[in-house]
Amino acid sequence: MTERINRKWCLVSRPVGMVQESNFEPREEPVPALTDGQILVRTLYVSFDPAMRGWLDDRPSYLPPVGLGDVMRAGGVGEVVESRNPDFAVGDVVQGLFGWQEWAVVESGGMRAPSKVPAGVPLTLPLSVLGTTGLTAYFGLLDLGEPKEGETVVVSGAAGATGSVAGQIAKLKGCRVIGIAGGPEKCRWLTESAGFDAAIDYKRDDVGAKLSELCPKGIDIYFDNVGGEILDACLARIADRARVVLCGGISSYNEKEQPPGPRNLLNLIIHRGRMEGFIVIDYLPRFGEAVGELGRWVSEGKIVYQEDVQEGIENAPATFLRLFQGKNVGKQLLKIAEPQGGA
Amino acid sequence: MTERINRKWCLVSRPVGMVQESNFEPREEPVPALTDGQILVRTLYVSFDPAMRGWLDDRPSYLPPVGLGDVMRAGGVGEVVESRNPDFAVGDVVQGLFGWQEWAVVESGGMRAPSKVPAGVPLTLPLSVLGTTGLTAYFGLLDLGEPKEGETVVVSGAAGATGSVAGQIAKLKGCRVIGIAGGPEKCRWLTESAGFDAAIDYKRDDVGAKLSELCPKGIDIYFDNVGGEILDACLARIADRARVVLCGGISSYNEKEQPPGPRNLLNLIIHRGRMEGFIVIDYLPRFGEAVGELGRWVSEGKIVYQEDVQEGIENAPATFLRLFQGKNVGKQLLKIAEPQGGA
Repeated sequence: MTERINRKWCLVSRPVGMVQESNFEPREEPVPALTDGQILVRTLYVSFDPAMRGWLDDRPSYLPPVGLGDVMRAGGVGEVVESRNPDFAVGDVVQGLFGWQEWAVVESGGMRAPSKVPAGVPLTLPLSVLGTTGLTAYFGLLDLGEPKEGETVVVSGAAGATGSVAGQIAKLKGCRVIGIAGGPEKCRWLTESAGFDAAIDYKRDDVGAKLSELCPKGIDIYFDNVGGEILDACLARIADRARVVLCGGISSYNEKEQPPGPRNLLNLIIHRGRMEGFIVIDYLPRFGEAVGELGRWVSEGKIVYQEDVQEGIENAPATFLRLFQGKNVGKQLLKIAEPQGGA
Repeated sequence: MTERINRKWCLVSRPVGMVQESNFEPREEPVPALTDGQILVRTLYVSFDPAMRGWLDDRPSYLPPVGLGDVMRAGGVGEVVESRNPDFAVGDVVQGLFGWQEWAVVESGGMRAPSKVPAGVPLTLPLSVLGTTGLTAYFGLLDLGEPKEGETVVVSGAAGATGSVAGQIAKLKGCRVIGIAGGPEKCRWLTESAGFDAAIDYKRDDVGAKLSELCPKGIDIYFDNVGGEILDACLARIADRARVVLCGGISSYNEKEQPPGPRNLLNLIIHRGRMEGFIVIDYLPRFGEAVGELGRWVSEGKIVYQEDVQEGIENAPATFLRLFQGKNVGKQLLKIAEPQGGA
């Protein structure tokens, strides 16, 4: 057997402001031999999320920063090519934090442990609706948002992988759902395919005026993926007992210094509102429940989703940047190999 | 009996920016004769709270704005001088929303209904620890803050009527409590009399540096009375699962336009924090429980308090302004008459 060469992308400098392709460097190295308990995974799809931007900064957070010189951390789906672990067989499809690389040597135990993808599940689904982004929508909307029938829900980043699922779950719970997204194509998808009641194009519309028009009784739940001015516009229009679910703040992820926050914070007092952040990892013990329910909704056609699949390991940094350029429609993925096994 | 003349202060213009004495005008009018069900109250003490600033703006809030030409709304304690209501006798001490005036004609029913002050309770206590300010501290700290033994609690406006009670309740629950106040006198009172573990003088200290030094494990509960930069400094230092209790934001009550909010909002995501506002009126059904417990703590010497008592109805607007000048130490009151009856 010829020696396998692993092509990978390593973090070589920490971004100051907007992340650049030059913060990463391609490297090649032979795939090492396995030791007991390890498996060798050939990465098929790599997952990209805005939250990965936070892993590049050298400051304490919910996960340690990616080390300089280390392979860039990322979720992925792959195929087991060799196994010295009795729990995994060659041909198994697995998901895990395989990183921006063609081959990953991984072992059981810990948060980075791979897990098997059940047969019959489309290869990319564990990275989108049944992955971190879908789970984030599920727990954020249901646990922090506590939607009640007839309530008005606003979702920003609504055409994204998390926002689109959050909005559709809110619809399943009987809410009126307004999505905020950038551009007519995304907005059309929200109302025509994803069942949103209305969509606001933040690039063209006056967001505040549109919100006032579409939410005459105020906003009961605001599911925030962007922060910044849109968060402020929503805070200005909350209903009594509103819940603001802080899921992400992509508008400021690439700022050198955090910009000032919303002016309308005192509305939380007047309207007895709650604003709460969360990290989906904390819900690990309930992932099974959520994956089961999300999987059922997808198979019944109650949740639709879009995937933006780029190709080739050489395009990993460029694919990551698409998230911050607003180019992706739905879940951003990178395909780097064809499955060979039984998957 | 000579005709009684009521001296009162009416709102004559809405403040733009800082409230001015000239926004109010003194007026005199004969006290009208009572009709069935009414009582005539001679106001003894008037209560002043920062939140009253919000009642002057013509915008929807948790209470309707004070109308132009109307007597300024305020809580007070008074004595029943005439009664055509079987529930009240001449000489009863009552509390209610009597306003900035010497005489108030009031009736039962609704939120403005007077209630009797039990015998033996000091006259001013229903306006301070056993009044809105103490109740606000009680429900805000216990219900929203959910203090646990050993946690670190930071209170701003800590020498004020609400902050000082919130901090002392946190101490009773076994927390480490740091107060933020303006000036050495207030800070000394916090640590020497009110049992706070430490105090930060925001006029002299580097608040952020002091917080880092005094809260090495981060802030579990921040009870916010001021907003602005101090809120931001606390958000920058929250511990995992922190609760930020939004009680007030005196730093911006008199701003023409709300200033930008905290830069460190995304910390709520990283640390799974919660920020929540509330209005004490919502807890009306539980006021009895709270007054009972607060009263016990006061009588046992476990909660101490300070009152800043000005005198004379003519000084009502000037007394109100003391709150925004940071002049009051503890609960701001105005005494406008001596009790005549059995109280």
